Amino acid sequence: MRLDALAARLGCALRGDGAVEVTRVAGLEQAGPGEITFLANPRYAEKLGATRASAVIVRPEVETAQPALLTDNPYLAFARALEVLHPQPKPAPGVHPAACVDPSATLGEGVHVGAYAVIGAGCSVGPCSVIHPHVVLYPGVTVGADCMLHSGAQVREGCRLGDRVVLQNNAVIGADGFGFARDAQGRYNKIPQVGIVVLEDDVEVGALTAIDRAALAETRIGRGTKLDNLVQIGHSVTVGEDTVMAAQVGIAGSTKVGRQVTLAGQVGVAGHLTIGDGAIATGQTGVSSSVEAGAVVSGTPVQKSREWRRSSLLFARLPELFARLKAVEKKLGG
Amino acid sequence: MRLDALAARLGCALRGDGAVEVTRVAGLEQAGPGEITFLANPRYAEKLGATRASAVIVRPEVETAQPALLTDNPYLAFARALEVLHPQPKPAPGVHPAACVDPSATLGEGVHVGAYAVIGAGCSVGPCSVIHPHVVLYPGVTVGADCMLHSGAQVREGCRLGDRVVLQNNAVIGADGFGFARDAQGRYNKIPQVGIVVLEDDVEVGALTAIDRAALAETRIGRGTKLDNLVQIGHSVTVGEDTVMAAQVGIAGSTKVGRQVTLAGQVGVAGHLTIGDGAIATGQTGVSSSVEAGAVVSGTPVQKSREWRRSSLLFARLPELFARLKAVEKKLGG
Amino acid sequence: MRLDALAARLGCALRGDGAVEVTRVAGLEQAGPGEITFLANPRYAEKLGATRASAVIVRPEVETAQPALLTDNPYLAFARALEVLHPQPKPAPGVHPAACVDPSATLGEGVHVGAYAVIGAGCSVGPCSVIHPHVVLYPGVTVGADCMLHSGAQVREGCRLGDRVVLQNNAVIGADGFGFARDAQGRYNKIPQVGIVVLEDDVEVGALTAIDRAALAETRIGRGTKLDNLVQIGHSVTVGEDTVMAAQVGIAGSTKVGRQVTLAGQVGVAGHLTIGDGAIATGQTGVSSSVEAGAVVSGTPVQKSREWRRSSLLFARLPELFARLKAVEKKLGG
Repeated sequence: MRLDALAARLGCALRGDGAVEVTRVAGLEQAGPGEITFLANPRYAEKLGATRASAVIVRPEVETAQPALLTDNPYLAFARALEVLHPQPKPAPGVHPAACVDPSATLGEGVHVGAYAVIGAGCSVGPCSVIHPHVVLYPGVTVGADCMLHSGAQVREGCRLGDRVVLQNNAVIGADGFGFARDAQGRYNKIPQVGIVVLEDDVEVGALTAIDRAALAETRIGRGTKLDNLVQIGHSVTVGEDTVMAAQVGIAGSTKVGRQVTLAGQVGVAGHLTIGDGAIATGQTGVSSSVEAGAVVSGTPVQKSREWRRSSLLFARLPELFARLKAVEKKLGG
Repeated sequence: MRLDALAARLGCALRGDGAVEVTRVAGLEQAGPGEITFLANPRYAEKLGATRASAVIVRPEVETAQPALLTDNPYLAFARALEVLHPQPKPAPGVHPAACVDPSATLGEGVHVGAYAVIGAGCSVGPCSVIHPHVVLYPGVTVGADCMLHSGAQVREGCRLGDRVVLQNNAVIGADGFGFARDAQGRYNKIPQVGIVVLEDDVEVGALTAIDRAALAETRIGRGTKLDNLVQIGHSVTVGEDTVMAAQVGIAGSTKVGRQVTLAGQVGVAGHLTIGDGAIATGQTGVSSSVEAGAVVSGTPVQKSREWRRSSLLFARLPELFARLKAVEKKLGG
Repeated sequence: MRLDALAARLGCALRGDGAVEVTRVAGLEQAGPGEITFLANPRYAEKLGATRASAVIVRPEVETAQPALLTDNPYLAFARALEVLHPQPKPAPGVHPAACVDPSATLGEGVHVGAYAVIGAGCSVGPCSVIHPHVVLYPGVTVGADCMLHSGAQVREGCRLGDRVVLQNNAVIGADGFGFARDAQGRYNKIPQVGIVVLEDDVEVGALTAIDRAALAETRIGRGTKLDNLVQIGHSVTVGEDTVMAAQVGIAGSTKVGRQVTLAGQVGVAGHLTIGDGAIATGQTGVSSSVEAGAVVSGTPVQKSREWRRSSLLFARLPELFARLKAVEKKLGG
């Protein structure tokens, strides 16, 4: 594709020779002739001079030897360039003969259903959604339009997925929440989990991630929220819009996570808490009390990140501290 | 259902008008007319006055405006009310034509086998068990009566499940333990894992939880123990009865976990340790040494919880501590 | 099997009566007549006297009452004895009639494909590999010779597996990396992940482990590396040869892990870091900065293990420290 055509597709300004041909997207260091690269993080600006790419995507103020596409958000333009130059093949519409679709299920136009997929009674799948092989929809599941459900994803009875939802492989939506009532003998009796899970539009759920159904009402993941792999969402949790959780995060039951929250890898959040809008927790934080909107937190038990970092530096100096205290005590004739 | 009939079914005393009709169970705040709610945690007592439920389940000493079911264990009665008012549909007995059941396998009466399930040679499934679509039983697996194996659950060769065992979706029972012997070149050679996994009666295994087979003998989970999602149980681990592990707990190989133990979310336990009966570990605890029966522990490395909390509070005050020490040193003409 | 025959098979020297019959391998404490056991860890030497095994595998300098196989690496000989005495049944070659193999896929000689497996267009499976039931290979996947892919494993489009690769159940290879570009409205836009995953020869991937495909090029796991269950490998990560990661480890995107590295359970590693060859991280370490070759590290934030252990001991003594400081201040007329 000519660079000027790509500029038009991405809505970027063009600087330099628009007749250059670019056919692939590549990283700054890996790119070669015929490829376009990007500079999103100013930290890597020094690598820009050495790239062998035929063109680059940069902010307008960045100078380049190559022809360039100019935008205030090079990372977003990079994402769109990938869509244009590396279109992902989409399985053709149709139901594989070795799929098992209940006669009472309804499939929208252009739906693809792969081999050995199971679509239960009363399910509904919106137009142009892709149900890969080995996906199981229990009875009464609704899936919106333009969804992509990868192989091995399991969606339990009655759960509802909005439009453009993506489930990566082996994700589990709507398994029973972890609820048991202890009897006089100390035995755990299962509490039937009769609620559902609702995934709003544009939610993406990572591979091997579990979102449990509510005991009574619903577990809900807000529009545009993205969950990485191996994440655990307990029953009756609600998550706001445009929140991200990195891999192996766990949220215990009934906690409310706000909008535009960022939880880094392996963060754990206890049950019945509130995480305010825009809050950020760094990796492995153990959130045992509610977090205010906009707060940046770390540590177990959780603290403001700035304070946690300060204390952590001093933690490493504890041997020195004890030695100094001992010296003081000695001076005092202790 | 009339409230007096429900009282009889649950074995609760009735207070007030037994002719009230209740058709659903709901939370204190969500409940409306025709619904029954419950108060298990005295912390939420103030919400009781505002509930619009038609009836409530409470301890006998709790006063209510509505007709009430009286019991010493409202949470357990709530669980049973859910069973009565929200019966979960159970798939009808029979083997789906698109399932693959080895001729040498034996199925008890009333067993359901869903589409694309695979039941290997020599397997045995007890009466009334439900094998959902896409469950795989490798050869030689035995499953007891009244079990519920959800779609995507995998049970490896020779493993044994008791009665009323529940496997949530994509759980993996009996994958190879993580055992390798290093040779002179530093390469890891696989140690064949020839043991099995035994799940005793009434065990529940969460979605995406892995319980590895033993190298030589067996990994065993005791009667009534409940494991949440994304839990890892290493090879040759034994877990006692009526223990609970929250999501993302990991237990390394050959550790012995006692009865009525509680491990909160993301707890990690090293290998070859013993966790005594009734012990409790709070979230994210890193258990690197054995824990006595009844102990409550926290932190990495693990401490008594009370001590860990005290030290954690002081950790947050380390900057103050260093400043005070400096002041002392200055006074001493340091 | 006679002990002298086993000695020959394992390349061990024989001490004592070679005519003894051994038919099984068992642990020191569990072994009985007709069984062979081993002593690898000198810690357990005292148990050797009490074993009822008919023969033992030990280092040459260890004295035994029983006939013995002598080797400098008893653990490795134990692994090989298991292979000899407990041969794992391998499914017979052939494609199950209820498997779905694309006509354009190529299968080597002796390949087994189980029920409901899906092998996509253009896939290639090398000789003698076993594709268990319910494995899905998306289009364009290549699998080497003598691989073992367990049920529920999912391999996404274009990924490449070397020879003798083992995937445990429900492992996911090549799901989309977690990459999103935020737009002016704060919404996350998916970055197409057009790279692949490469697993080199002799890699083993645990149950429910996820290895994400790269955004642009490849995520690569080096020869002989072993990953336990529920591990997360982010996009564009590279891992060297003969590295081991215990269960629930998570590695964020673009990090480079060296050769012969050992990461214990629940370790988290941030993105864009380098972990040097031979480094070791103890359980739950939070690696937030690069680690030198050969270093042994612990803690969050990460420290040298020796220093972390020292500080951790003093952490437990913080209440004492504050008390002592107070006493000093008092003495000084504070």
